[in-house]
Amino acid sequence: MNDFWWQRPCKALDTQALEAAQSRQQQLTKPAGSLGQLERVAVQLAGLQGRVKPGLDKLWIAIFAGDHGVVAEGVSAYPQEVTGQMLHNFVTGGAAINVLARQLRARLEVVDLGTVTPGLNLPGVRHLNLGAGTRNFVEGPAMTQAQGEQALQAGRDSVLRAVEQGSELFIGGEMGIGNTTAASAVACALLDIPVAHLAGPGTGLDAAGVSHKARVIERALSLHAAQRGDALQTLFNLGGFEIAALVGAYLACAQEGVAVLVDGFICSVAALVAVRLNPECRQWLLFGHRGAEPGHRHILQTLEAEPLLDLGLRLGEGSGAALAVPLLRLACDLHGQMATFAEAAVADRPA
Amino acid sequence: MNDFWWQRPCKALDTQALEAAQSRQQQLTKPAGSLGQLERVAVQLAGLQGRVKPGLDKLWIAIFAGDHGVVAEGVSAYPQEVTGQMLHNFVTGGAAINVLARQLRARLEVVDLGTVTPGLNLPGVRHLNLGAGTRNFVEGPAMTQAQGEQALQAGRDSVLRAVEQGSELFIGGEMGIGNTTAASAVACALLDIPVAHLAGPGTGLDAAGVSHKARVIERALSLHAAQRGDALQTLFNLGGFEIAALVGAYLACAQEGVAVLVDGFICSVAALVAVRLNPECRQWLLFGHRGAEPGHRHILQTLEAEPLLDLGLRLGEGSGAALAVPLLRLACDLHGQMATFAEAAVADRPA
Repeated sequence: MNDFWWQRPCKALDTQALEAAQSRQQQLTKPAGSLGQLERVAVQLAGLQGRVKPGLDKLWIAIFAGDHGVVAEGVSAYPQEVTGQMLHNFVTGGAAINVLARQLRARLEVVDLGTVTPGLNLPGVRHLNLGAGTRNFVEGPAMTQAQGEQALQAGRDSVLRAVEQGSELFIGGEMGIGNTTAASAVACALLDIPVAHLAGPGTGLDAAGVSHKARVIERALSLHAAQRGDALQTLFNLGGFEIAALVGAYLACAQEGVAVLVDGFICSVAALVAVRLNPECRQWLLFGHRGAEPGHRHILQTLEAEPLLDLGLRLGEGSGAALAVPLLRLACDLHGQMATFAEAAVADRPA
Repeated sequence: MNDFWWQRPCKALDTQALEAAQSRQQQLTKPAGSLGQLERVAVQLAGLQGRVKPGLDKLWIAIFAGDHGVVAEGVSAYPQEVTGQMLHNFVTGGAAINVLARQLRARLEVVDLGTVTPGLNLPGVRHLNLGAGTRNFVEGPAMTQAQGEQALQAGRDSVLRAVEQGSELFIGGEMGIGNTTAASAVACALLDIPVAHLAGPGTGLDAAGVSHKARVIERALSLHAAQRGDALQTLFNLGGFEIAALVGAYLACAQEGVAVLVDGFICSVAALVAVRLNPECRQWLLFGHRGAEPGHRHILQTLEAEPLLDLGLRLGEGSGAALAVPLLRLACDLHGQMATFAEAAVADRPA
């Protein structure tokens, strides 16, 4: 099998639009570089969207949910049933991401890849039933090859729907009790970083809980050590359904030409896997925020990512990325609407 | 004279609303604390606005402009005429703050306290004509007592207009070629920090330019050393018209009960002076961003400020504060609209 869809080429940047945008930035009525990171993202978006004045009106948010067998090891502060309960909350509109999606005029879809709650059938939710959560990965692979490929495809399918709606930006979110443990395990297997640096409190473990979580991850890494260099197999051994869906979504965005705004720790680990599977996809990824989970900064450094926000967030659901959307939109507005020195008859330097 | 208006008491926080907001945050369907800094600002705004669910629909942005005599010493990368040219640009709507004000649905007013451009008479701009810029402060006080008091009052007058319009948040911006030199000099005189830490490139000086600027500031500090401990006199000796207007505005906001979102380096120095003149005003100040000007972090540390953004901005005009407004609004939306655990039937921890 060397014809996986995710290995196909990513869309190339439009270098002409990118250079024209760079040149426009130099002519706007402000000291050169004075809008800092907002200038860089406006120029990057111009290259991604192939237009000198990019825009982010149409926003797509997909929440991927799944349960994790490793929760049996006592690695989470919350009971596993909360994954299903939060799916209810997404449907009734009371979760953080619902509030944000409304305010940002985003399309929000919820994809349930497989939870421990039997027979969930919620209006508007896509229930894919890949399994009653993943298998406990200290006892064996978290998912089968077939489950893993279905999860990757589920992410891609969401992107294809986003493309159909003309979406200009894709945000993937996740919900899954136990998924910081899975994400930490995947990151440890792919990076040469000690478990202690990547295992954190998640939704609220105390110090003893974090130590226990780290030991659980160590056991899993020993069990799956033989495949440590293989990003795909590591994802299937140690990841989660929703993490695999995010990986598939990011890769599909890069192939279809939709800019991605990556959320927090778990999404950044999915981005790391995506970049390992198909390095070209990296340039399609923007990063919303640096979260409170201590491992996040290591992942961001590895990806040479420059996140927009640093607010101590650790909620997930795509919320940190959603919170950064107004900044990206304002960066595009400033880039597109400010007067040039010539238009405004303002003297550029030097004095 | 011990009855200056700015020494009168500031409005007290509504502790009942603040505590009710704190309690509400604990009940929302998310791990406790997972919205990080956004939880703290929502609670603070509840205390400031005296309602459990605060809102920031009505936003007031005032740009204060003035010229600086010290530019004669060669401390700026831009010619002094740019201050007046940018006033034109504000009127025709091509500046960064115009774009931001439009997108944020803010009221924007422009107050010209005194520039070197003779006979400026721009539609919609309040020309106060305090002088053709300040005096070169290496040769004497930047402004007279009378000019200084008029500038403070100009800031207060803007706030009184904002109150009349029901504004829920006040942003002060500044425009004035040479004003990072004035702000650095004021900060050096008030804080025990070496000039080298507070003098920076401003709109774009090179290393030699920054060294020269630091030497100019040293000369000014020597000249005005006798009044170094006196915040008001230091402001008049070393500040600028627009900086004094910002000081007056921040103090009036605290007295009138309007939350402030402070912009970058120059505005933060004005906030420092305001806090020295009337320490109670501190709790009415929120901070939009940490800017690129190296001295900014020292001022923020002194004020124990926790800015929302850190994007390498160095534009002024209130732009960094304006860019942080969507975050504050979304913090209020999340606080006000998310479901509680009870409403959503989601299990709170522990597991």
